[in-house]
Amino acid sequence: MRLHELGEFGLIARIAEAVGAGQEPVVVGIGDDAAVLEAPSAGYLLVTTDAYLEGQHFRRQWLTASQIGWRAVGAALSDIAAMGGEALAVFVSAGLPSTEEAAFAEQLICAVHEAATEHGATLAGGDTCASPDRIYLDVVAVGQGQQPWLRSTAQPGDVLLVTDTLGGAAAALHLLESGTVQNADGLPPALRECFIRPTPQFAVARCLQQLPQPPCAIDISDGLVQDAAHIAEASAVALTIQAAHIPVAETCRQVATEAGADALRWALTGGEEYELLLALPRDSVEQALTLVEAEGVKLTEIGFVTAGKGVTVVDAAGNEIELDRGGWDHFASY
Amino acid sequence: MRLHELGEFGLIARIAEAVGAGQEPVVVGIGDDAAVLEAPSAGYLLVTTDAYLEGQHFRRQWLTASQIGWRAVGAALSDIAAMGGEALAVFVSAGLPSTEEAAFAEQLICAVHEAATEHGATLAGGDTCASPDRIYLDVVAVGQGQQPWLRSTAQPGDVLLVTDTLGGAAAALHLLESGTVQNADGLPPALRECFIRPTPQFAVARCLQQLPQPPCAIDISDGLVQDAAHIAEASAVALTIQAAHIPVAETCRQVATEAGADALRWALTGGEEYELLLALPRDSVEQALTLVEAEGVKLTEIGFVTAGKGVTVVDAAGNEIELDRGGWDHFASY
Repeated sequence: MRLHELGEFGLIARIAEAVGAGQEPVVVGIGDDAAVLEAPSAGYLLVTTDAYLEGQHFRRQWLTASQIGWRAVGAALSDIAAMGGEALAVFVSAGLPSTEEAAFAEQLICAVHEAATEHGATLAGGDTCASPDRIYLDVVAVGQGQQPWLRSTAQPGDVLLVTDTLGGAAAALHLLESGTVQNADGLPPALRECFIRPTPQFAVARCLQQLPQPPCAIDISDGLVQDAAHIAEASAVALTIQAAHIPVAETCRQVATEAGADALRWALTGGEEYELLLALPRDSVEQALTLVEAEGVKLTEIGFVTAGKGVTVVDAAGNEIELDRGGWDHFASY
Repeated sequence: MRLHELGEFGLIARIAEAVGAGQEPVVVGIGDDAAVLEAPSAGYLLVTTDAYLEGQHFRRQWLTASQIGWRAVGAALSDIAAMGGEALAVFVSAGLPSTEEAAFAEQLICAVHEAATEHGATLAGGDTCASPDRIYLDVVAVGQGQQPWLRSTAQPGDVLLVTDTLGGAAAALHLLESGTVQNADGLPPALRECFIRPTPQFAVARCLQQLPQPPCAIDISDGLVQDAAHIAEASAVALTIQAAHIPVAETCRQVATEAGADALRWALTGGEEYELLLALPRDSVEQALTLVEAEGVKLTEIGFVTAGKGVTVVDAAGNEIELDRGGWDHFASY
C-alpha cells in the first residue's frame, strides 16, 4: 500500500498504535494538537532540532527506512547529551513522497521511536506531510539537565578531551561514496554499527555530573576542528589540538591506507561522529578519566586551551598542520 | 550575497544578533547544542511541530520571505493555543537553497522571531541546512498550560462552538490559485491580514481558563469538518454541525459569489483557518460567550454532540448535506 492510499491520518493511527501511550513524562502523546509533558520538577529544559534531509545528510540507497530513523534520532539526541542532559521525548516532522510505500514510512517512524526508547525517551508527536520528491526529516529532542554544559565556558589552562575514537564516520562515508560498498549493511562490522546507530554520549553526561563544575562541551557533528572552533569562538579562547594524541579509529586507519587517504585528516574533519569534545580544568581531568572509563568509554586528552582565538592543530614537534577545511558548512558544502 | 557565500555559521551569527539574548524562560538561546529553558514551575509542558513545505503548504511567488515566516509560526503556535496553553519558545529548522539570497533567509527567520514575540515567545534555536530546491521549514512551538484542552473530552449533550468567522483562508487560496491576484499583497484587505498573519487564539485560551472545566478543543487547520471528525473519533461521540449557523466570513461570501463557488463549502472544508472548534457542556456556554466576547472575539454555537460516531452536517431543515471531502489529507491531496 502506498502512502496516498493509506492517507495522513491512517499513517498517524498506525504509528500511534505502534508507539502506545508513551511513558513518563509524556501525559498525552501522538494524536492531539500538541503533546503534553509533565514539566521537570527541577533543573532546566533542553530543546534541540535536527534536520535530516535526503541528498544532503544521507542517500536513500545507502540506508533502510529503519536505519534512516535511527541515524536521525542519534544526531538529535547527541545534542541533549552534549548539554549534559538526559532525554525525555522526541518528535519527528516527516516530509515523505506520497508514492512511497506506507510500510517504509511506518518503519522509519517506528525506528525513531525505538531509537528514542533506547535512550530513555518516547516518540511523543510530530507532523507528516507529502514531499514532492525527497525525504525530509526534522527530529526534535527534549531533555532535562541540572546544570547545562555550554560551549562558552572554556578557560585558558583547560585541557581538551574527546570521547572514544574518531574518523570512523568519515571512513564509512568514503566507502559509501566511492562505491566500495553499496550500502550501510556492506560496511565492515566496526564501522557499520556506529554508522547505523550513532550513540549519543548519555553515559558520559551522566557520570560527569559528579565533577565539581560542569565541563565545557560540544558534540562533534560538524568535524572535530570545526566544532573546536565553535568552542573557541563562544568562549573567546584559543584551542590547540595535538594531532599525535588524536584517538584515530583503527578501522579508519585501515580504510584510509587502502584508499591512499590520510586517516588523521578524516579524524580531524569528518562530521557525524557524535563523540563529545570537552574542556576541563587540569585538576578535574584525573577524576573525569576515572569516571568515564568506569562506564567503559575511552576518554583521551588531545590538547589545551590558552588565551587568544581560533583553533590550531599541531604535530608532535609543535609545528602547525594546515587543513584545507575544518569540517561541514551546510550551505558551502552543497 | 548568496547563502553559500555567507555560509551556515555566518547566517546563524546574523540571526543570533538580530534575535538577541531572548527573554524568560530562555536561559541559553541560539548558538549552543541545545537551547536551555527554565522549566515551568507548575502545570504541563506543551510541544508541537509543524512542517511548512514549499509547493505543499505555500508557493514562493505568493509570499515574501517575511510572510512565509509569519504564516509558519502562526500555524505552529495555533496548536499551543488549541491546547489552552501559552507560548514559551519557538524553534525553526530551515532547509534553504544555497543559491538563495542571504537576505531572504535572514528576513524569513527574523520574521519567525517577530511572530513568536508577538505571541509572547522567543526564537530560541533551530537548525539550518541546504535544500537542493525547495524551502522546507519545520517550526517547533513549546508552551505551558495548567490543564490541557484535549480532543478526547467531548461528551454527548455538549455544544459545539467556533471562534470568529470561517472561509476566509479558502477564499484567499481561491484568489491566489485562480490567478485573480498575483500574491498575498494583492488580496482584499480583510483577507490579506488573516492570510499573512494568522492569529493563534491565545486570547480565547486565556479567558476560558475561568471555565469550571477545560473545554474539548481543536484548531481548524485541516478544515472544520475534518477537524470535527478528529474530535468525534478521539472522544468516541457523534458531532452534528448546523450549516445555517456557520459564521461564514463576509469576504468569503463575496469572493465565492464572484467565483460561482459555494461559500458554505469553503467554510466547512477550507484548511488553515486557525480558529478554535470547542465542545462545552450546555451550562458553560453562556459564561464562555461572555468571556470570549469581552476579549472582542466572536464565538458562535454551530452544533451539538450526541452518542454515536462521525460528523454530520445538516441544513436548516435538519437534512444531511453531503460533502465530497471534509478537508485536507496531506498524502491524498498532493
